Amino acid sequence: MDFAYSAKVQDLRERLTAFMEANVYPAEKVFEEQVAQGDRWQPTQIMEDLKAKAKAEGLWNLFLPESELGAGLTNMEYAPLAEIMGRSLIGSEPFNCAAPDTGNMEVLVRYGSEEHKRTWLEPLLRGEIRSAFAMTEPGVASSDATNMEANAVRDGDEWVINGRKWWTSGACDPRCKIMIFMGLTNPDAPRHQQHSMILVPTDAPGVKILRPLPVFGYDDAPHGHAEVLFENVRVPYENVLLGEGRGFEIAQGRLGPGRIHHCMRSIGMAERALELMCKRSVSRTAFGKPLARLGGNIDHIANSRIEINQARLLTLNAAYMMDKAGNKFAQSEIAQIKVVAPNVALQVIDRAIQMHGGAGVSNDFPLAYWYAMQRTLRLADGPDEVHRAAIGKYEIGKYVPKDALRSSR
Amino acid sequence: MDFAYSAKVQDLRERLTAFMEANVYPAEKVFEEQVAQGDRWQPTQIMEDLKAKAKAEGLWNLFLPESELGAGLTNMEYAPLAEIMGRSLIGSEPFNCAAPDTGNMEVLVRYGSEEHKRTWLEPLLRGEIRSAFAMTEPGVASSDATNMEANAVRDGDEWVINGRKWWTSGACDPRCKIMIFMGLTNPDAPRHQQHSMILVPTDAPGVKILRPLPVFGYDDAPHGHAEVLFENVRVPYENVLLGEGRGFEIAQGRLGPGRIHHCMRSIGMAERALELMCKRSVSRTAFGKPLARLGGNIDHIANSRIEINQARLLTLNAAYMMDKAGNKFAQSEIAQIKVVAPNVALQVIDRAIQMHGGAGVSNDFPLAYWYAMQRTLRLADGPDEVHRAAIGKYEIGKYVPKDALRSSR
Amino acid sequence: MDFAYSAKVQDLRERLTAFMEANVYPAEKVFEEQVAQGDRWQPTQIMEDLKAKAKAEGLWNLFLPESELGAGLTNMEYAPLAEIMGRSLIGSEPFNCAAPDTGNMEVLVRYGSEEHKRTWLEPLLRGEIRSAFAMTEPGVASSDATNMEANAVRDGDEWVINGRKWWTSGACDPRCKIMIFMGLTNPDAPRHQQHSMILVPTDAPGVKILRPLPVFGYDDAPHGHAEVLFENVRVPYENVLLGEGRGFEIAQGRLGPGRIHHCMRSIGMAERALELMCKRSVSRTAFGKPLARLGGNIDHIANSRIEINQARLLTLNAAYMMDKAGNKFAQSEIAQIKVVAPNVALQVIDRAIQMHGGAGVSNDFPLAYWYAMQRTLRLADGPDEVHRAAIGKYEIGKYVPKDALRSSR
Amino acid sequence: MDFAYSAKVQDLRERLTAFMEANVYPAEKVFEEQVAQGDRWQPTQIMEDLKAKAKAEGLWNLFLPESELGAGLTNMEYAPLAEIMGRSLIGSEPFNCAAPDTGNMEVLVRYGSEEHKRTWLEPLLRGEIRSAFAMTEPGVASSDATNMEANAVRDGDEWVINGRKWWTSGACDPRCKIMIFMGLTNPDAPRHQQHSMILVPTDAPGVKILRPLPVFGYDDAPHGHAEVLFENVRVPYENVLLGEGRGFEIAQGRLGPGRIHHCMRSIGMAERALELMCKRSVSRTAFGKPLARLGGNIDHIANSRIEINQARLLTLNAAYMMDKAGNKFAQSEIAQIKVVAPNVALQVIDRAIQMHGGAGVSNDFPLAYWYAMQRTLRLADGPDEVHRAAIGKYEIGKYVPKDALRSSR
Repeated sequence: MDFAYSAKVQDLRERLTAFMEANVYPAEKVFEEQVAQGDRWQPTQIMEDLKAKAKAEGLWNLFLPESELGAGLTNMEYAPLAEIMGRSLIGSEPFNCAAPDTGNMEVLVRYGSEEHKRTWLEPLLRGEIRSAFAMTEPGVASSDATNMEANAVRDGDEWVINGRKWWTSGACDPRCKIMIFMGLTNPDAPRHQQHSMILVPTDAPGVKILRPLPVFGYDDAPHGHAEVLFENVRVPYENVLLGEGRGFEIAQGRLGPGRIHHCMRSIGMAERALELMCKRSVSRTAFGKPLARLGGNIDHIANSRIEINQARLLTLNAAYMMDKAGNKFAQSEIAQIKVVAPNVALQVIDRAIQMHGGAGVSNDFPLAYWYAMQRTLRLADGPDEVHRAAIGKYEIGKYVPKDALRSSR
Repeated sequence: MDFAYSAKVQDLRERLTAFMEANVYPAEKVFEEQVAQGDRWQPTQIMEDLKAKAKAEGLWNLFLPESELGAGLTNMEYAPLAEIMGRSLIGSEPFNCAAPDTGNMEVLVRYGSEEHKRTWLEPLLRGEIRSAFAMTEPGVASSDATNMEANAVRDGDEWVINGRKWWTSGACDPRCKIMIFMGLTNPDAPRHQQHSMILVPTDAPGVKILRPLPVFGYDDAPHGHAEVLFENVRVPYENVLLGEGRGFEIAQGRLGPGRIHHCMRSIGMAERALELMCKRSVSRTAFGKPLARLGGNIDHIANSRIEINQARLLTLNAAYMMDKAGNKFAQSEIAQIKVVAPNVALQVIDRAIQMHGGAGVSNDFPLAYWYAMQRTLRLADGPDEVHRAAIGKYEIGKYVPKDALRSSR
Repeated sequence: MDFAYSAKVQDLRERLTAFMEANVYPAEKVFEEQVAQGDRWQPTQIMEDLKAKAKAEGLWNLFLPESELGAGLTNMEYAPLAEIMGRSLIGSEPFNCAAPDTGNMEVLVRYGSEEHKRTWLEPLLRGEIRSAFAMTEPGVASSDATNMEANAVRDGDEWVINGRKWWTSGACDPRCKIMIFMGLTNPDAPRHQQHSMILVPTDAPGVKILRPLPVFGYDDAPHGHAEVLFENVRVPYENVLLGEGRGFEIAQGRLGPGRIHHCMRSIGMAERALELMCKRSVSRTAFGKPLARLGGNIDHIANSRIEINQARLLTLNAAYMMDKAGNKFAQSEIAQIKVVAPNVALQVIDRAIQMHGGAGVSNDFPLAYWYAMQRTLRLADGPDEVHRAAIGKYEIGKYVPKDALRSSR
Repeated sequence: MDFAYSAKVQDLRERLTAFMEANVYPAEKVFEEQVAQGDRWQPTQIMEDLKAKAKAEGLWNLFLPESELGAGLTNMEYAPLAEIMGRSLIGSEPFNCAAPDTGNMEVLVRYGSEEHKRTWLEPLLRGEIRSAFAMTEPGVASSDATNMEANAVRDGDEWVINGRKWWTSGACDPRCKIMIFMGLTNPDAPRHQQHSMILVPTDAPGVKILRPLPVFGYDDAPHGHAEVLFENVRVPYENVLLGEGRGFEIAQGRLGPGRIHHCMRSIGMAERALELMCKRSVSRTAFGKPLARLGGNIDHIANSRIEINQARLLTLNAAYMMDKAGNKFAQSEIAQIKVVAPNVALQVIDRAIQMHGGAGVSNDFPLAYWYAMQRTLRLADGPDEVHRAAIGKYEIGKYVPKDALRSSR
């Protein structure tokens, strides 16, 4: 066993950290101001500047395991870099490593046709356009993805798409040119072979971005979380990825690395919240002592440190298992981090808010915004409950024949 | 022992509930729309209509224990009514029972001069103006209220006030005409006799409402939580309440009933969140079952019910002790509910969010907004930590001579 | 609403408290010593002395609501007395108020024939004999009581009983002369009408007390928790209580008051553990301070106070509801306290152990023993899980037609 | 990074696991029976047999990092082996890897004179004798080790030792021939240089093993946790280890590896408890379903899996840091695992108890005994509170000059 980062990873960590400190953290307030000026739903100049700078330094497309298109990093190598980027809500996009583009690009690399790659993957890799993923629906419990009702019906050489999606993150950004739509195409097939993924250009007639969904009052502009209506949207039949009814197959492949990314970003955010908490605890005084010395405050700091360290190791180990044995083999581990990381981040951020007093819930510190963003991650890509059920089933599966608990949830 | 509500209280509960159902709940969306139209910081027509209607029905100024000015209810009698009002964020103002006016009116009733009462209390009781309470400061850890640095210096017949306050809730509303300012007036007196409360008209020269502080992205308009600058603000010397250096004395008296109100409102909100959670759990289906029948969901509902019931009984008992033996005697109990009620509300609301999936963090349901508002209550009027320390000290005080732990915190 | 104890209850509380302080607490060590001398499974002289003394003071059979045989107290009136007795593991028997006799006597009062009463109830009421309740079985998940397999088959004028029971508390005590056996008698009846309760003398041929079951290493002698084998045990047919197949009907009635007793005793124990914790925290010094002033220790004390107060109010309110509206009406509330009280007691005791360091897990303090005893109460009379499910179902039942969730658990 | 065990470790893991399955698990009941027969405080034949067998297979003295006397394993290499041994309470001694001998042997290796080694280390390494560590005292809060009052006074060529120790684990076993006594020798030196470690033969005149201390009713025979009185015990001056006043220096060195061992054993126990929980959950039926499919049971299993995995990774990483950078560098990490591992084990075992119903608290399953043993580990070698304070202080130390918080605890 060796818990040290490789030289290659260590070098990238240092370069990334330096970039964050020199460029990204100082840009946070600027970004906020630029969003606040005029139309909130336009891209900001500062982000484009950051992207140019990062690209110039070779810090670009660091994700994409096992592909010559990215930096050639394994999931485990990329993970600590995702943590560093995750320390800022604007920390991933400068390196073209922001969700949902990363997941979408991976899908295109693995399952896209040459035509798909030329038209959509290439400009995405160059950071010229952005993308969205349309899966969750307002009308059904999407925790059970087979509930999805939005559908695509083949009509000759085309799909005719109808339905309503929401939490289509990023679709409010005018740079978002392509969506991966997942919907019902083969209602008579077995349960997990009824849905397909289809590429839908954002400007296709019939696509309506209805509204940005706020998260605890934050609109997350200019990215935004869109409710999208598809009304008789027509796209070529070839836009289906991998094949009809293979949506869940792709989803499984897409989710693994994405979860590592998300979790490591959560850990980065938790780590930065802990820094803020510590700094506040030694700089403010009440009852004649620094806050750090009052009551159980030091315990909150200690517990935060413990939880973060544990979450990081669990995630790195999951990434390691994915790299060594494949996503399927690491299924329980990936579910475990999906539960752990956002919950740890929320707890740490909540304690940091408490240490900051009223300032903590305001926007003078980023804590409340971070809390809101992390809170969505206990729901996105399946709520905690679904993942706990999967972990538990996997565990008892060691002691009973699989079939015996088939209908168990 | 008798756990039943008196006939008088039961009658008021029924009338209030009927009013809420007929008028307040249906007004929630309207209120939201009216705030969203044009200037968010103007009062809404719907609220003025609700006030008129409630006043006409005699549901007006129900708070004010031991005073002929209100409904003549004890704290314990008023508590269950506050719960009902607390079920909606716009549920207290229609009855002229909204914070911080309630606390401010109580202060004026108890400690105001005839002149103060005529000028400020009467229009407040009529619901014509509103008020604010300026205590917390951005520059110091206000959990230790003796840290307050904003000050008032006597200059002949006047006070000259300087300093910066924040979380001066309600000060953004143009109807807010009067603030109770608490600040340093006697820096050389013993620690708890250095501060005074002084009436400051919102339109006094030198008072600057700098900005509304958002709470998790919500501006809470048109009420708002203001940062207020006082620059050489001059008010008559008589504006001091009760006397110089008696700020903490008033604060103690003010807080007791206010905490009952706040806690019962939190419980009302938790109760309504539990309703939403239950309804969602039986109306959405995943994996072939209603959510209520999946995994530990039923436990979350059960735990919510238990926690709410316990919080309510604890609060009612604290109110009972206040009524029977006085605020001072109920000191530990009041601190206990201050810790319990917001935390219970947050837990229940968080579980309700989780049961709602993505809808829970959006604004299609009120849950995220409620969460944000409740989160502030773990900080307002002293963070949990301060109250736990007080409860603990009171407890060990039974076993040691008071002096032995004097400096203990 | 009136949270004060009535004069009658207050008087009994004072007399009981005085008796505990004068007689019971000082007897604890003596009791332990007498048990340790010779045969652990013989009754102790000290307990017989305490009984005589309590009886002489009129502190006898205080339970038994709505019966002229006891003290004529309602559940709510008796509850605070049970708390006081519960402060000592030997605190209930002196007053002839110990489980399982209390529940068994109630069953005999309500459902026994005149003959049953004369033979068993009267000596029980006089404290001459003791009794046991044989329900839980080692071979099946007894959390679902309909799983019970031990059975009684009618053979002419007799029942022939076979099966194995365990956790038959008290059956190891030679004074235990009668058991209420619950078992399968009508296997073809509807699910909740298959079982009956039958009186079985402990000395009936075929009854074998196999062994005392230890609880965390404690044998709880001379009371003991027995595994009992019934091998072709014959008792008269008239020994069936209320009638064939009515076992669950009786069980429902038996459990309500018993749960109030158990819960209040748990609260009494928690209260005494908190006292021990506070005393230790102010009498031991580390790092130059009393333990009470180190880190989060004061928070543990505060949380304990809060939890105890809440659990007590919840239990008193459940008792109130039972008295006013009947056991059935208070079903959810009774389930709530069954979950809350033992868990609160365990938490408080665990914190008290931690404050005592190594002494806490030893027998120099009663804490570890108390912990073990309380831990069984999360399982006895149904595990937490069953009660939470019942509470949750009751809650969602408000929003759906009962039938819709019939099979829900 | 590489999360895989090395070939060498993997081989040892397999051999150890095979040995446990073939020999240790089947011996558990036998061991229990042999202890129960006759004098509980005599060594058992079964254990001597197991030792002979393990020694013959070369599974002997696997601990002892950086020493040619053991297996030459690093802390990280030994850690997964300690986990396997920890799965049984009798799982370490067969391999001569049981506490407190392991820690004591390490001390003798590092700090013992040639004479000490010949007399005590060699028979310990051969498994012929056992040892104890006498540090904690009943009269003071030993969480602050500088409180220790038992003392040794030099009298010519001898130490004269007086005082009272408890939790001297293993001293009740007649094979225990040597104790490391830690006590006050230089009361006028700086705080952490006042105490020394001195070798005291168990049969030295004046050493009195007063009693075994039970843990939750378990005596842990024949090992036992002794209260020991030292009355004018005389040992040669050379018996002092390393030098006068260097007790804390040794303690620091002793604790690091020992904590890894303890924590990995806790994890092994938690892992086995999870196995028992899973097996029970699929083999018992209630309400028509296996327990695993009822309510939140599957969540308890999932959470247990997550917590165990996290605790293991945290501990392995701490071991790694110790190996690479030294105990001092890994100080916060060692404190972190000391908090995490026993708490995780307790939670998992408690859930397993709950899944077993009444059987769980009895001795038909090992769960209650395990719980009791793990509970002591939240106190032994310093309570959680002390470790959390250390972790927290380390954390805030990153943001302030060390001196600024010197007196902070």
